[in-house]
Amino acid sequence: MNVEITGLGYYLPENIETSKQLSLKINKSLDWIISRTGVEERRISSIDVDQMGAIAARKALGENTPDLIINASGVGKQVIPDTSVFFQKELGLKGVPCFSVHATCLSFLVALNTAAAFINQKIYKKILIVSSDRGTRGRNYEEAESAALLGDAAAAVLLEGTKEKSQSEILSYSMQTWSDGASYTEVRGGGTNLHPQDKNTTLQDNLFSMNGPLIYKMARKKVYKLIHSDLKKNNLDIDDIDCIVPHQASMLGVQAYHKYGGFNKDKVINIISKTGNCVAASLPLAFAIACEENKIKKNDIVYLIGTGAGLSIASMVLRY
Amino acid sequence: MNVEITGLGYYLPENIETSKQLSLKINKSLDWIISRTGVEERRISSIDVDQMGAIAARKALGENTPDLIINASGVGKQVIPDTSVFFQKELGLKGVPCFSVHATCLSFLVALNTAAAFINQKIYKKILIVSSDRGTRGRNYEEAESAALLGDAAAAVLLEGTKEKSQSEILSYSMQTWSDGASYTEVRGGGTNLHPQDKNTTLQDNLFSMNGPLIYKMARKKVYKLIHSDLKKNNLDIDDIDCIVPHQASMLGVQAYHKYGGFNKDKVINIISKTGNCVAASLPLAFAIACEENKIKKNDIVYLIGTGAGLSIASMVLRY
Repeated sequence: MNVEITGLGYYLPENIETSKQLSLKINKSLDWIISRTGVEERRISSIDVDQMGAIAARKALGENTPDLIINASGVGKQVIPDTSVFFQKELGLKGVPCFSVHATCLSFLVALNTAAAFINQKIYKKILIVSSDRGTRGRNYEEAESAALLGDAAAAVLLEGTKEKSQSEILSYSMQTWSDGASYTEVRGGGTNLHPQDKNTTLQDNLFSMNGPLIYKMARKKVYKLIHSDLKKNNLDIDDIDCIVPHQASMLGVQAYHKYGGFNKDKVINIISKTGNCVAASLPLAFAIACEENKIKKNDIVYLIGTGAGLSIASMVLRY
Repeated sequence: MNVEITGLGYYLPENIETSKQLSLKINKSLDWIISRTGVEERRISSIDVDQMGAIAARKALGENTPDLIINASGVGKQVIPDTSVFFQKELGLKGVPCFSVHATCLSFLVALNTAAAFINQKIYKKILIVSSDRGTRGRNYEEAESAALLGDAAAAVLLEGTKEKSQSEILSYSMQTWSDGASYTEVRGGGTNLHPQDKNTTLQDNLFSMNGPLIYKMARKKVYKLIHSDLKKNNLDIDDIDCIVPHQASMLGVQAYHKYGGFNKDKVINIISKTGNCVAASLPLAFAIACEENKIKKNDIVYLIGTGAGLSIASMVLRY
């Protein structure tokens, strides 16, 4: 599909929490945190997801006004209305249609594919996609590993039809969901299942829970197969990929793309030590930072890939 | 866009709560409930949204296996993973990609338009859309009007490319969001805003809140304009519409389509007295029941329209 990312922006809260500071809260040593998660520090936001997202969105938009706003985050501001509405409000826009796409850490990839379909069907022309997550709000200090992983961030892109003289396009997109892994990453509360008003709903039910080792075990082979199928489908050799931007799930998860996936280490964008896992914002944040650092240049072939609660796996081969 | 609804299903829980029964809980008379909401009875589900949705989905699917599952509900089963994953699990499917679209009461219309774009871009071929809402779980008995409005239901459709000899297509789709009405319909908790672990979060914050009169005041003129613009855009006279299926927001809201909108009363599908407002499931439920009762026939021009939290307004002109 012929689409082009014409605007990019991100927001990293100023406030840094080091893993040394966190170690006291989760009763683990600094070495334990680094060896298990690879996260040295993460950002803690003092503003909510709508304001965080709006800062990233303004950078992505520049002087443009979008004709659609898609929220592509992991956890919303509130149950109703969906968060896209609050982005619109923060941006001071009126009338622009808004909705959310939710696939937890893969929300951004799903939204990018959805927006590309809209643009190619001539339904919308300038689509703003915003991923904004404040995962530290739902940390469970009694589950040390996931508590150490989470960080706050927002990122946004403006997507349009491919401009003249540009070669931007989505070469392929793929997604799979394996619901036998549905319990591996959860926030069990907040909906109809364990409603806050139910006596049996505990505080833990409203906090983030993740079984890293089980996810890694389930995902590794499937991700490996997906990489091979994507390369074959696009008639690409692994060296034809200029840059791979994985969801920043964990240091182990990100490193696996070069350790086992066969990608050159320099091509794998790895920001997790400084940001943690920022849920749905992780992937577009890593993408935006890589562009800023000139690790991704126009016309590069970029491979976006990740896993998310579900368990889901998704990938996109993009000519930037 | 050339698409065809090839499967339809719905689920109405067996358990009926009459407005007389409810009147004791909300401390209002039966007459008060009927005059304010028009709801005589609503269904109360004893199974959760995933099981409700799966019953509707099985009817819509028949012998088919979808290649994408979209959850298009108002409130999820839990915060993470999104509810589409739980539909997949209930249906016993593996690998089929899943995600959610969220625009509260308009989720079904947004998902239908999204799925149509995917099919026309040849990204997916057989898309299952499921709307399942258990609004009675979040009723606030101290807000009598919204508590009396809500009911539980699920509905599902299978969407495919238009079959040979069929004329099915989406003739137009439109959506607007006006975030100055963001506070008119809310569940303020369940996200990062008023987190369940915050001391200041109250039980009320996790319950449904709706300001019917303000919504009606804001929406009426905008809906009226939208109808005229849709008719003009499609070069249709109001009598060319064979059937109008509105979101079942309230009796006043549904009746407005013939009282002020100019549609013949017999053409306006009105099921609210027996089901209440079933959030996102209301519109596809009304559609499925109208088809079952032969009020909608193949090749009919059907007008789907509604308002949702946001405040959003969306419409679709569909040749069924």
